[in-house]
Amino acid sequence: MRKGDRQIVEHELQETGFSPESEKAKNKYVEEEDEDEEEEDESVEKIFESREVPSWKKQLTLRAFVVSFFLSILFSFIVMKLNLTTGIIPSLNVSAGLLGFFFVKTWTKMLHRSGFLKQPFTRQENTVIQTCVVASSGIAFSGGFGTYLFGMSERIANQSGDAYRGVKNPSLGWIMGFLFVVSFLGLFSVVPLRKIMVIDFKLTYPSGTATAHLINSFHTPQGAKLAKKQVRVLGKFFSISFLWSFFQWFFTGGENCGFSNFPTFGLKAYQYKFYFDFSATYVGVGMICPYIINISVLLGGILSWGIMWPLIETKKGDWFPDNVPSSSMHGLQAYKVFIAVAIILGDGLYNFCKVLSRTLSGLFVQLRGTTTSISRTSFTLEEDPHASPLSPKQSYDDQRRTRFFLKDQIPTWFAVGGYIIIAATSTAILPHMFHQLRWYYILVIYICAPVLAFCNAYGAGLTDWSLASTYGKLAIFTIGAWAGSEHGGMLAGLAACGVMMNIVSTASDLTQDFKTGYLTLSSPKSMFVSQVIGTAMGCVVSPCVFWLFYKAFDDLGLPNSEYPAPFATVYRSMAKLGVEGVSSLPRECLVLCYAFFSVAILVNIVKDSLKSKWGRFIPLPMAMAIPFFLGPYFAIDMCVGSLILFIWERVDAAKAEAFGTAVASGLICGDGIWSLPSSVLAIAGVNPPVCMKFLSAATNSKVDNFLSRSS
Amino acid sequence: MRKGDRQIVEHELQETGFSPESEKAKNKYVEEEDEDEEEEDESVEKIFESREVPSWKKQLTLRAFVVSFFLSILFSFIVMKLNLTTGIIPSLNVSAGLLGFFFVKTWTKMLHRSGFLKQPFTRQENTVIQTCVVASSGIAFSGGFGTYLFGMSERIANQSGDAYRGVKNPSLGWIMGFLFVVSFLGLFSVVPLRKIMVIDFKLTYPSGTATAHLINSFHTPQGAKLAKKQVRVLGKFFSISFLWSFFQWFFTGGENCGFSNFPTFGLKAYQYKFYFDFSATYVGVGMICPYIINISVLLGGILSWGIMWPLIETKKGDWFPDNVPSSSMHGLQAYKVFIAVAIILGDGLYNFCKVLSRTLSGLFVQLRGTTTSISRTSFTLEEDPHASPLSPKQSYDDQRRTRFFLKDQIPTWFAVGGYIIIAATSTAILPHMFHQLRWYYILVIYICAPVLAFCNAYGAGLTDWSLASTYGKLAIFTIGAWAGSEHGGMLAGLAACGVMMNIVSTASDLTQDFKTGYLTLSSPKSMFVSQVIGTAMGCVVSPCVFWLFYKAFDDLGLPNSEYPAPFATVYRSMAKLGVEGVSSLPRECLVLCYAFFSVAILVNIVKDSLKSKWGRFIPLPMAMAIPFFLGPYFAIDMCVGSLILFIWERVDAAKAEAFGTAVASGLICGDGIWSLPSSVLAIAGVNPPVCMKFLSAATNSKVDNFLSRSS
Repeated sequence: MRKGDRQIVEHELQETGFSPESEKAKNKYVEEEDEDEEEEDESVEKIFESREVPSWKKQLTLRAFVVSFFLSILFSFIVMKLNLTTGIIPSLNVSAGLLGFFFVKTWTKMLHRSGFLKQPFTRQENTVIQTCVVASSGIAFSGGFGTYLFGMSERIANQSGDAYRGVKNPSLGWIMGFLFVVSFLGLFSVVPLRKIMVIDFKLTYPSGTATAHLINSFHTPQGAKLAKKQVRVLGKFFSISFLWSFFQWFFTGGENCGFSNFPTFGLKAYQYKFYFDFSATYVGVGMICPYIINISVLLGGILSWGIMWPLIETKKGDWFPDNVPSSSMHGLQAYKVFIAVAIILGDGLYNFCKVLSRTLSGLFVQLRGTTTSISRTSFTLEEDPHASPLSPKQSYDDQRRTRFFLKDQIPTWFAVGGYIIIAATSTAILPHMFHQLRWYYILVIYICAPVLAFCNAYGAGLTDWSLASTYGKLAIFTIGAWAGSEHGGMLAGLAACGVMMNIVSTASDLTQDFKTGYLTLSSPKSMFVSQVIGTAMGCVVSPCVFWLFYKAFDDLGLPNSEYPAPFATVYRSMAKLGVEGVSSLPRECLVLCYAFFSVAILVNIVKDSLKSKWGRFIPLPMAMAIPFFLGPYFAIDMCVGSLILFIWERVDAAKAEAFGTAVASGLICGDGIWSLPSSVLAIAGVNPPVCMKFLSAATNSKVDNFLSRSS
Repeated sequence: MRKGDRQIVEHELQETGFSPESEKAKNKYVEEEDEDEEEEDESVEKIFESREVPSWKKQLTLRAFVVSFFLSILFSFIVMKLNLTTGIIPSLNVSAGLLGFFFVKTWTKMLHRSGFLKQPFTRQENTVIQTCVVASSGIAFSGGFGTYLFGMSERIANQSGDAYRGVKNPSLGWIMGFLFVVSFLGLFSVVPLRKIMVIDFKLTYPSGTATAHLINSFHTPQGAKLAKKQVRVLGKFFSISFLWSFFQWFFTGGENCGFSNFPTFGLKAYQYKFYFDFSATYVGVGMICPYIINISVLLGGILSWGIMWPLIETKKGDWFPDNVPSSSMHGLQAYKVFIAVAIILGDGLYNFCKVLSRTLSGLFVQLRGTTTSISRTSFTLEEDPHASPLSPKQSYDDQRRTRFFLKDQIPTWFAVGGYIIIAATSTAILPHMFHQLRWYYILVIYICAPVLAFCNAYGAGLTDWSLASTYGKLAIFTIGAWAGSEHGGMLAGLAACGVMMNIVSTASDLTQDFKTGYLTLSSPKSMFVSQVIGTAMGCVVSPCVFWLFYKAFDDLGLPNSEYPAPFATVYRSMAKLGVEGVSSLPRECLVLCYAFFSVAILVNIVKDSLKSKWGRFIPLPMAMAIPFFLGPYFAIDMCVGSLILFIWERVDAAKAEAFGTAVASGLICGDGIWSLPSSVLAIAGVNPPVCMKFLSAATNSKVDNFLSRSS
């Protein structure tokens, strides 16, 4: 499977969008001596040798956290918007790195001019910002605002008509509390394992490595030049995208008004959600995602909304009653949701098994091959920081990096103690929030969690793919079934999902950051502190951002609204499936679900067995499932993004390689940050003045008649 | 005054949009040895020395006229569309030259492959095509379909409520007949004077010279390379523009629907016609027109629709009755039309005087300075073609060109005889078409015409500015007043305007072509024949194209329609002014007219007295007058075009210089040719399926209520 294909699908932040190899292509764009570059590839640390590495406390500057705070608000808005519209979240690491670099650089330049600069801007500080921002905006994803958490709400429950099985409406207070008690456990669980993962196993962590390369390159002269250009491009497209969203806003004065309802391919196609909705965000997302994802999403859209739903609609009155509203879970909507769930589960199961088997076999090889060294290491762990196991084949870079990585230690007793204290607090508090979630469920989760967190961190290191949401689904089904439908199993399952997801997701995040820190000579201590501070920021910022959306848009979570939050329904439906089985599904739906479940597994097997030469042309079932529920309109946006990038690559490959991600990030960020003023306007009751409406010619003449009569 | 600023305003085709100097910049874009270029500048004919110049009969190939025919249809559509929307027509010489080159080149390449090629493609043949196409599409302008001819129709008369003063509705038959009897006179009137104009007076004819440079450059190797690239760019933007118009069409299923009614700056601004109407044509026109024209048009729009009309509207019920419809000539409309007329007349009068004085003083200098040579020439005229007056200072190019120019002669008796025969026929026929137009009016026109034709041709040679429409207005007032309001003076005036305009406009066209022919070694005979054939084509094609528009769009000529034909109303109003004076104007309108008439003259005086350093920042009154009547929406399009070109020039000046005109031509041609299928669809009764409507939020909620009730 192509690296980086997967993890952006269904809520993952770790996708990188660029690889160390592509860095070379970028550097080509900035003219420089080739030999220098060769050498840089050989030894990055030689270049940085003359620069002093600040102590871990000096890496954690106030300015870094101030910048991180503002960026984390920006990215929380973006992630939240993506969560609530489609649930597809591309990697924002590059934007975070770029913008962090830009802000601190501006800051230091200003201070430098005024003579107040005490400390130069180092790559360690840059890494701290990046870590903090990603940790904070990671909460916007793992907090489940588009998935399990919002799935508990009455609004989602009413759509599937199972509010009687337990609801818990969002409220700022309990969400923040919940996040605070569950989000820090993951961090403590992987701290003792960092040396094994990063130094002994030498896991790749493609995203972490790529981010480190980016940050390292920023701090070399020609890298800074390129970064400056990229920032300018990002800024330009940020403004364009922001202004475009602003412009669009004026024409949305009513339901189904504005560009986001533009029937680009005609009204008939629009009914089946085939249209280009002029969203800069998804054009940008399409530019970051690999081509195969965009094609998969489009294929899924054509298969579902182009073929299957119209066919199933003809069975109205036969397979399902014809007097239910279109959004009811007793009608067509049930097919949409449950077939999507089946594909997601099939794909998830296959990949869970695959990553687990690779994790175990990888571990087995590591343990057998390096028995002595590992056993020595595991005993000397934390004892003598300077006695690093330097084998003769280690390069200068490796030596220097290992030395710095082992210099600052986090004591194991601190990690273990921290885990136990937080777990105990959490076990005591959570049952008060969700009385369906008994204390012994939580205890079981916390006992299993470190193992799962390790598995996830290890798997992410191998494949760059965090399985957090898969572990979350596991929790839904197991805890849900354990609690049973009579005892609020649905809510218990969803809450357990949240607990589990937060642990495993932050665990893999932190290990990624350790890798980045290793490659940029940042201290593990500063990484840990930055991640803790970032997580704390996220626990405050994300709920506030969600709350803003929730209060501003009354139709949040309803199908056909601007923010349908599709995965909230999907997660609730999974919980329902967990507690009451398949009995409530309409006719033939179960058969279709089984079929698609098997097809999803089969397609994955075919894809993997064909190897990358042909396998990369096989679509991804998980990506195909998303438009089943939502409709293919965003797939069209994404394909437009792909097309732009494709043409750009044909016209000027070097430039496309160097600036493609910056353009895409600009488009995403600009549109994303517009949701701040737009939700403020909505709360303030300021309505857009014009409605751009699309009527058929016949309806239009009726309306014209009506208007001329009434005026 | 900056060369080329004026003649595009109010229906002139002669604008060039590029100058010989800019050719150099273009050539820079195609990498080649600089010395070659220097030499080319020194002697073009040395480069072409080895190539045989075909005899005049061989210059007139069948393929040239076939290509001309198709291009003349294309350009007639474009000119007609421009005529009927705003009346601003930019130069299409470059597109004609480029497309002619492209088609014949493709043709000869195909023939060459199949072995049928008898004759290579020469620059003489290219000149023949260009001449023929410009002559033919010139009729689409001088035929008055947007001015005097359509101004006679009932539809225009009803708007000003003066149908009782005489109307003549368009009909295919009489229009063709009219054009045939009046369009050839101008050609014969200047034939005997070609040597004086081109060789003796060495008049510059900027457009003709530029076209010749272009054609010459096409036929050198690096010129052909650039031309091929330009054709590719033109083709790309042609397709984009065509597809965009096609796409727009789908959303125009009703009145005031679609992109051309997009309230870009809000509904309030839209009421006063401030909006961007997404017209590729006018964006392209804006790219061709000099910046000062675009700024003038915008300023005029702001002055009139932004300030004056809202102020005058407050006087409703005081200055003019408040119960008349908005399109009535007794209300606000009268101010719009007559103030525009006043400015156009003021500007026209000033420039008429200016060009006339320059013509006379130029003539005076020429006649005094070269008395002997001229007198000798005028006597040897047409006698000994090889005894050219070669003075020692003449360059090789001049010698060679003069020799070829004098080789093929058109006998003076032929020209004079032709003129008399056609004038006689015309005098006999015209009174039968317009019984208000007595035969003696026509005779007087035909007696004065050769002098005016010479003046116009001479003026155009000096300033590149054809005053055809000014001479036309002169005829409206003189003949109108002579006939008097009782005897159908209005119709007589408008018809006389047509007769006059056709003569003087074709006269200056032909002289331009003689200059082009002189510079490309094309024979005057072939130029003349090509112009005659082109004119004949135009007399058939233009009425048919107009007829298609007239039949396809029922609201052609009505204000607020897609094709308001603004100058038809303006011309009719001028005729009305001519026959009945100023008595019918509403209150204060006359004062305003006098004021604006004087301001127009004053601005021109200031502009000219400031010289080009500051004078080029003074807006042009004639350009400012157009939006007075139409509204500033097309000015916004044009300024967008300017802005694009401005940014492009800042980013990559060489590329902008080389391809700017090609992009603009592509945009204009693509949108223009879409009017063919769109009018065919309209005639076939195929209506667009969707209406993109813009409603205020309040109206929208009313409409939503109505729709939910009615469904």
